[in-house]
Amino acid sequence: MTHRLTPLVASLPATVPFVGPETQERARGGPFIARLGANESGFGPSPRARAAIAAAADEAWMYGDPEAHDLRHALAAHHGIPASCILPGEGIDGLLGYLVRLLVGPGDAVVTSQGGYPTLNYHVAGFGGALHTVPYRGDHEDIDGLLAKAREVGAKLVYLANPDNPMGSWHGADAVQRMIDGLPEGTLLCLDEAYADLAPARVIPPLDPADGRVIRMRTFSKAHGLAGLRVGYAIGHPELIAAFDRVRNHFGLGRVAQAAALAALADQDWMAQVVGHVARSRDTIAEIARDCGLTPLPSATNFVAVDCGGDGARGRAVLQGLLSEGVFVRMPGVAPLDRCIRISCGPEAEMSILRRALPAALAG
Amino acid sequence: MTHRLTPLVASLPATVPFVGPETQERARGGPFIARLGANESGFGPSPRARAAIAAAADEAWMYGDPEAHDLRHALAAHHGIPASCILPGEGIDGLLGYLVRLLVGPGDAVVTSQGGYPTLNYHVAGFGGALHTVPYRGDHEDIDGLLAKAREVGAKLVYLANPDNPMGSWHGADAVQRMIDGLPEGTLLCLDEAYADLAPARVIPPLDPADGRVIRMRTFSKAHGLAGLRVGYAIGHPELIAAFDRVRNHFGLGRVAQAAALAALADQDWMAQVVGHVARSRDTIAEIARDCGLTPLPSATNFVAVDCGGDGARGRAVLQGLLSEGVFVRMPGVAPLDRCIRISCGPEAEMSILRRALPAALAG
Repeated sequence: MTHRLTPLVASLPATVPFVGPETQERARGGPFIARLGANESGFGPSPRARAAIAAAADEAWMYGDPEAHDLRHALAAHHGIPASCILPGEGIDGLLGYLVRLLVGPGDAVVTSQGGYPTLNYHVAGFGGALHTVPYRGDHEDIDGLLAKAREVGAKLVYLANPDNPMGSWHGADAVQRMIDGLPEGTLLCLDEAYADLAPARVIPPLDPADGRVIRMRTFSKAHGLAGLRVGYAIGHPELIAAFDRVRNHFGLGRVAQAAALAALADQDWMAQVVGHVARSRDTIAEIARDCGLTPLPSATNFVAVDCGGDGARGRAVLQGLLSEGVFVRMPGVAPLDRCIRISCGPEAEMSILRRALPAALAG
Repeated sequence: MTHRLTPLVASLPATVPFVGPETQERARGGPFIARLGANESGFGPSPRARAAIAAAADEAWMYGDPEAHDLRHALAAHHGIPASCILPGEGIDGLLGYLVRLLVGPGDAVVTSQGGYPTLNYHVAGFGGALHTVPYRGDHEDIDGLLAKAREVGAKLVYLANPDNPMGSWHGADAVQRMIDGLPEGTLLCLDEAYADLAPARVIPPLDPADGRVIRMRTFSKAHGLAGLRVGYAIGHPELIAAFDRVRNHFGLGRVAQAAALAALADQDWMAQVVGHVARSRDTIAEIARDCGLTPLPSATNFVAVDCGGDGARGRAVLQGLLSEGVFVRMPGVAPLDRCIRISCGPEAEMSILRRALPAALAG
């Protein structure tokens, strides 16, 4: 039989936002020797989080608390905001899907940057929204351009990643706050702060969940090193946070993931160490790039966008060269960002591999 | 600001399908002494799965393979079907949400049993579908009634749980196959087989994923004892399975969960032991119920529906009595099923608690 997909689903492409490194490994017939493409934290999770995962194995027969009460309250205490303003969920990807579903119906306008996070675009298409994009300006997301476009199209949602992925650039807290204050009536800002833990404090505006104009996304997948458990959380106005309960998979965040996130959050010493490791690794990547005649861009994240000094064809050639050398990296999808490749920070062993592989990739 | 929810979302109730036991524990001011309400497996996961969880802690910094290649292929080998017919996902709850999203738009008809799995109904409402229900017949889902209703309303989807939740009853494989063969043109059967591992073989029709009329749901949350990691999988026609890629959260199934499920699947000895434990526990629950003058219903699952010998008020009173004794149980939501309470199987320690608590609950 032909399955009676909804007209919307039938119209969606079969392409996926990201092809996993494992798929690439199967295609190339062997494992990568360095995994520096998904902005994971090669420094690993806190030893306390690892212990919590192991300890939770015996409790894995029980569903996770669907309210994630303990994690919610620990996050509330950590951030100094009410627990009712926080919703833990299945990574930022999962939360973005719910957020789009809450707000965006067929034809509803969403504004993002051209070359911004593909998974946001995937969700907008998936619910029939109309995506409007604004080019980057000087490798930064264009705040004024995003606001102007949001006004022009009556956007329900505008998306900003700060610090930015895939470029690593950032706006200061003041600029972001000006963006919030400049939002058109009825436009919600989705402020993706996946890399907030790794950015200087001056980049992150104070949390103000009483302000219903913005919802902020955080994650345990980056600095906390828990991508393999997929825990993110949204911070927003209690009414908006409560609305997620109407559509979310209530038991989607498992018991093991909640236990790990709780333990990771409690280990701020580890976080401080990771932040230091990441800063040194950014410097190392920049040095390796410069030694090869390439131009590293400044970054407030756990990766560095490296300008390969040409157009997209040049970027793709360098990317391909690194992949051939067994180094998993990714690159932005659109011009002019695609003159760059994006290299994740990692421990010294991976940096040594990169140091050998990049010249070989450029020679190839 | 008032958030501009879609009209559909704005119309949805704030109620959730299930309130977690942790919420009830917080309300009553202390933990339950026996957790027998969510059909979890108190016998726990396989030791090999526990070891896999602990071992995966060191790898928790990496996202899970978005294609879940290894798990998919292990399941394919286990079931003797192609991997293209299998999609692992975030529990059956998550997969049901995706399935409804694929097929059901505003006003599209879905048929299920009155008192059937609430999370299916939640997803149907969440995508604006029109839910049509058919009463149980003699504590069994009414296959002929479901088919007649599907024909009457031109259902896109009809849902059957076999073995059934919340009643524990079952239809033989022949009856289910007759249902598949009797489906109206264009109606997909969602056959929820969450409890398949615990049922006699004669209850489960042979897998035939070339037959596009049915999609089957399985889980690691029940017999495998991994509810805390939320891994389920769908078995269906490759075209329908591929369609999930258009809407699913590709990185939603984490690395730790995949590793645990793989290890659990490989330990069929443990599964056989659990099946034995569950069968004995069903007998124990039945005996405890009969000793109290109640009537246990036959079950092919890891729980027993116990007829309390009255109406819904009687069922709720017994449920409340058990909760007051510190025993977490649940009950069906609608008459006449709600003359029953639903007690999950568990180890002897929990059965001993039940043996003491049930008479006290009835005396109260």
